[in-house]
Amino acid sequence: MQETSQRSQSDELRRLFDPARVAVVGATDREGAVGRAILTNLDGFDGEVVAVNPKRESVLGYACYPDLASAPDVDVAVVVVPPDAVADVVRDAGEAGVPNVVVVTAGFGEAGGEGAQQEQELVDLAAEYGVNLVGPNCLGVMSTRSGMNATFGPSMALPGSVAFMSQSGAFITAVLDWANDADFGFSDVVSLGNKAAMDETDFMRAWGEDEETNVVLAYLESVVDGRAFIDTAREVTSETPVVAVKSGRTEAGAQAASSHTGAIAGSEKAYEAGFEQAGVLRAENVQEFFDFAKALDGLPKPETEGVGVVTNAGGPGVMTTDAVGDSSLSMASFGDDTRDRLLDALPGNANVHNPVDVIGDADVDRFETALDVTLADGGVGMAVVVAAPTAMLDYEALADAVVAAQAEHGKPVVTCFMGGERVRAPERVLNEAGIPNYFDPARAVDSLDALAEHARLTDREYGTPREFDVDRERAREILRGVTERESNQLGVEAMDLLDAYGIPTPQGGVAESPGEAEELAADVDGDVVMKIVSPDILHKSDIGGVKVGVPQAEVGDAYENLVTRARTYQSDARILGVQVQELVDTEHGVETILGVNRDPQFGPLLMFGLGGIFVEIMEDTTFRVAPVTEREADEMLADVQSAPLLRGARGRTPVDRDALSECVERLGQLVTDFPAILELDVNPLLARGDEALALDLRLTVDPDQL
Amino acid sequence: MQETSQRSQSDELRRLFDPARVAVVGATDREGAVGRAILTNLDGFDGEVVAVNPKRESVLGYACYPDLASAPDVDVAVVVVPPDAVADVVRDAGEAGVPNVVVVTAGFGEAGGEGAQQEQELVDLAAEYGVNLVGPNCLGVMSTRSGMNATFGPSMALPGSVAFMSQSGAFITAVLDWANDADFGFSDVVSLGNKAAMDETDFMRAWGEDEETNVVLAYLESVVDGRAFIDTAREVTSETPVVAVKSGRTEAGAQAASSHTGAIAGSEKAYEAGFEQAGVLRAENVQEFFDFAKALDGLPKPETEGVGVVTNAGGPGVMTTDAVGDSSLSMASFGDDTRDRLLDALPGNANVHNPVDVIGDADVDRFETALDVTLADGGVGMAVVVAAPTAMLDYEALADAVVAAQAEHGKPVVTCFMGGERVRAPERVLNEAGIPNYFDPARAVDSLDALAEHARLTDREYGTPREFDVDRERAREILRGVTERESNQLGVEAMDLLDAYGIPTPQGGVAESPGEAEELAADVDGDVVMKIVSPDILHKSDIGGVKVGVPQAEVGDAYENLVTRARTYQSDARILGVQVQELVDTEHGVETILGVNRDPQFGPLLMFGLGGIFVEIMEDTTFRVAPVTEREADEMLADVQSAPLLRGARGRTPVDRDALSECVERLGQLVTDFPAILELDVNPLLARGDEALALDLRLTVDPDQL
Repeated sequence: MQETSQRSQSDELRRLFDPARVAVVGATDREGAVGRAILTNLDGFDGEVVAVNPKRESVLGYACYPDLASAPDVDVAVVVVPPDAVADVVRDAGEAGVPNVVVVTAGFGEAGGEGAQQEQELVDLAAEYGVNLVGPNCLGVMSTRSGMNATFGPSMALPGSVAFMSQSGAFITAVLDWANDADFGFSDVVSLGNKAAMDETDFMRAWGEDEETNVVLAYLESVVDGRAFIDTAREVTSETPVVAVKSGRTEAGAQAASSHTGAIAGSEKAYEAGFEQAGVLRAENVQEFFDFAKALDGLPKPETEGVGVVTNAGGPGVMTTDAVGDSSLSMASFGDDTRDRLLDALPGNANVHNPVDVIGDADVDRFETALDVTLADGGVGMAVVVAAPTAMLDYEALADAVVAAQAEHGKPVVTCFMGGERVRAPERVLNEAGIPNYFDPARAVDSLDALAEHARLTDREYGTPREFDVDRERAREILRGVTERESNQLGVEAMDLLDAYGIPTPQGGVAESPGEAEELAADVDGDVVMKIVSPDILHKSDIGGVKVGVPQAEVGDAYENLVTRARTYQSDARILGVQVQELVDTEHGVETILGVNRDPQFGPLLMFGLGGIFVEIMEDTTFRVAPVTEREADEMLADVQSAPLLRGARGRTPVDRDALSECVERLGQLVTDFPAILELDVNPLLARGDEALALDLRLTVDPDQL
Repeated sequence: MQETSQRSQSDELRRLFDPARVAVVGATDREGAVGRAILTNLDGFDGEVVAVNPKRESVLGYACYPDLASAPDVDVAVVVVPPDAVADVVRDAGEAGVPNVVVVTAGFGEAGGEGAQQEQELVDLAAEYGVNLVGPNCLGVMSTRSGMNATFGPSMALPGSVAFMSQSGAFITAVLDWANDADFGFSDVVSLGNKAAMDETDFMRAWGEDEETNVVLAYLESVVDGRAFIDTAREVTSETPVVAVKSGRTEAGAQAASSHTGAIAGSEKAYEAGFEQAGVLRAENVQEFFDFAKALDGLPKPETEGVGVVTNAGGPGVMTTDAVGDSSLSMASFGDDTRDRLLDALPGNANVHNPVDVIGDADVDRFETALDVTLADGGVGMAVVVAAPTAMLDYEALADAVVAAQAEHGKPVVTCFMGGERVRAPERVLNEAGIPNYFDPARAVDSLDALAEHARLTDREYGTPREFDVDRERAREILRGVTERESNQLGVEAMDLLDAYGIPTPQGGVAESPGEAEELAADVDGDVVMKIVSPDILHKSDIGGVKVGVPQAEVGDAYENLVTRARTYQSDARILGVQVQELVDTEHGVETILGVNRDPQFGPLLMFGLGGIFVEIMEDTTFRVAPVTEREADEMLADVQSAPLLRGARGRTPVDRDALSECVERLGQLVTDFPAILELDVNPLLARGDEALALDLRLTVDPDQL
């Protein structure tokens, strides 16, 4: 059901960008009014524009209707009436079968209080009538496909094949002013506003299905539904690259974002993990955002990742090589044939190794030959042409040569024609062929890097998380134990929770009497470990609440002794019993930590790291949104910097990484099955040569979600 | 002596930039010749230009002399004669008292072989006559102070107060073309070429002493003399900021740089440490290079580091806040008074917290008021004005308001007037007042960050390394021990070397017989540790070559046993004896590693880190060029990510950081005193609550330097 409704929604959404008829509800010719600005901006629209305003018969020459019901088939209604009147318009739209409604009017969720209630009303109406509702509190929507500028902004986009959505309307106006000056075009531009109904995932899906969209750009301050975002992005980015700037990355930025949009964004860790898992390319700043877009829009996909550099300037050639060293790419090693051909073609003082230095007195012919030979090398997947101005070099002719070489070899080429005024004309030639030009070699290489990353993402196989056969009912029973507590925390006494999900735990259990402790111990071979179980005593070792290596015969006494110590330490501590556990040799293993917390947007977020100093002092951790696939769990184990210790570095026995990784997957399943688990820590999760074993557990449960 | 000669050299160097008479040696009117290009470029020179060419009486209208001796007082001779003839010209210049010679001619060191010899000849002649020799193999020198363009490049710089030197001539031509287009001016521009005599340190010193130079920019692929560079930079940067791009940072880049200039650059770690210790601001790429220069040239120094942001656009405000979060700066917290004043001045839906959002309908007046109130706040040391284009906002008027506000408050302001065409005119207004404007908030904030870093550097007190009272002769004796070896390595048998420099070592020594071992043990309280001493056995523990906790009575037997084991393991191993050492409790301490290697440019480079996994797997290390001051040694201990373990994290006893830091200083003195020490590792250097103790040592010595 969900799937079907999404599909049809997505079809309708595409009608939003190429409508036959657009209505402006609240149209007016009053100077300075938003309704006038939109109507004026719609002048260039290929389709028909109608005005809706019960008090007028025509507005600025457009036919005017009293309401949407009276207007002929409307594909898109843009709404600028006062906030109190918007709900009625949405209802009218629903009744009249208008599929897309763009609410420009502000004063809803972002204003708080009554506004938030009114916004919910809009959402409910949109759902009731199956209307695609964009906004409220947005700049509007534009599409160069149909020349539709249904915004109140000062400029219209140039045509292009990059789709752009933004949670900031001001950013759109700023970008358009810059882009028009820089000849950078867009297919569609959407101001997301409050994202009350239609959100980033809806537009990403629609653009992903659209043949004319080469790149999706998203300026986001939050993601409405992390899981849906990931699932949709995985499909979309298997063909169409999605580049996102997530604003509010830092603590200060997140605060500012929250006061800007009223949205509570989740943790940066969750966004980082979620975007990575989704296959979304993340730009760190505005410049990367458009640099990446340019490269992804215009360049062919690289087949291999070696970079060839051809330059007439030693220094800038070195800078370019540094930039490659900083990237995920590497300098191509030329084949012998390439070197021979370069030796033949270039003067004796030229450098025929990569970066190829054609020397300062090179003309276009020499440059052209070197580029041709370089691009013909099998190890070269992409190239950077770096040129400093000289008397011998005609930049425009070089631009033509670069365009021709890219076309012939079908490999992506970017350029650093360095300079000012003299670069302008050749830059236009390059840009028209989809080749970006930069002064700074670092930007050129970073753009190729994004292109290569997109190529990797299109090849990525996500797979689906394994579904283990678990005892869900037993797990639910254990979690329900929290309802008998004053706090909503559970500890070692809930170790069976892990057992129910197939995560190995040591033999033993929690005893509530010396006799029960002796019984539990009898089931275990040899000496045991005993720990006081109390939600009020956090640092058990500090108060002597842990006994390691208790012989079977002393278990009963040890029970009494542990309880006495706990009472002495804190007379009113709630004592749930004593944990009796098989004595595990922790010397010959690696202690790891597996944790979960719950992100407001992305849901359960898994954390993995090595125990003690690694997590606490070195902050050596990695995160993934749960549930995770086998590949993702494996990657978590490899991602941490301390990973070599798991592989047996420094004379250690390598741990059973398959067993450890399976624990990650199983825990992912557990926390996905039970949204009631708000936080959970398995610490330590002992990894050894032949197993992984959870030794301790602490979790926070929301009883209302059980 | 050194000092005096540097001073006078530096005075002469300043004459290079403001000469009365310039001679072009090798002047010609032949089309396409470098000699013609330079003569033509000198057209705009305020002083007198003369040609030197024995075959001509005048060239292009300039008086021509047969040699420098015949020409009237020449301040700068620019030399373009063939390589073989250059030495004679330099000699002539010396004889004629010409203080500055710029050798443009190529084919010297960079060509290798004979060229390198010829270059050395130039260096010797320059030293003999006290001539400042620039180049060879350079583009030339220009100075806008006197309109002198003594280069063969295609463009002359615009006037400015930024001095620029570059190891790449092509980069200069590229930069000038861009800079002239961007209205970015320079005072002096120097193409360093092969830096045979005059190098980056000489020019940095000269510009540091020059009142008209606001900023020194250096594009470098290597530094000739690291120590001199550091010492000079410390003086210079206490007033004048020095921004450097060091190219060849990455492994691939270093290779490319070496093939470009023939220079062997030292390790990136050394440059990183050296530049930091020198107070040099490092730009990672071309864009940062000029962004930083612009900010440092035109903006006042901030008094405090809080950033105030004023914007009419929520989203871009959030991006700016993120950029501040990424930087070393922080968002200012406003005082109550500021908030009250903003509440009074702004509409109800504005945000009066930082970032201040004046809302999209703001006009210039509202912006101006908000900026004025923000800059008046005591916690605000600098501000970013972020503006998106709106119908209400006049960018030019806003530019005037920003210029006025900066002038009134004396605090640095940078702007992000976002947009394209409409930004151009206001940008000129801002730039003229020294205020840089960027589309990307990240660049604006990074520029302020560089400005704040410069302010910190001007306040930095470097101090001088302590000189400890050490036994230098004893150390020399121990190092000479290497001459009796087949290898040039020393191990634990050289522990007295550390003792001679006051670095604590355990009691004991190396015995060459069972009897000697017993004697050594008798001097130690309790059980001892015994280790086989052999340069051929690296992993002593693996072959049972280490015995821990040997009782006094068993020392003799243990000696025999260790030697037997070593012989069994490798019959031809050279066995130097057995180390007998006091049994040190390593459980209650932190094992650290203190290492040294020798960088070709910066000399002895100290490395510090925590032992085992921290250095080897987590790569958690920090570097400094030796000798180090007390402050620098302390900083090394604090720099590593594992530093909390030294301070007593996770229930450990805090170690005696003063003792540990003193070991760093003392080792710095040792390796500075003895250039013969090529590499050295104290591993472990045990740090405990009341001492630091070197437990093992390995070093490589160059006997020829003893």
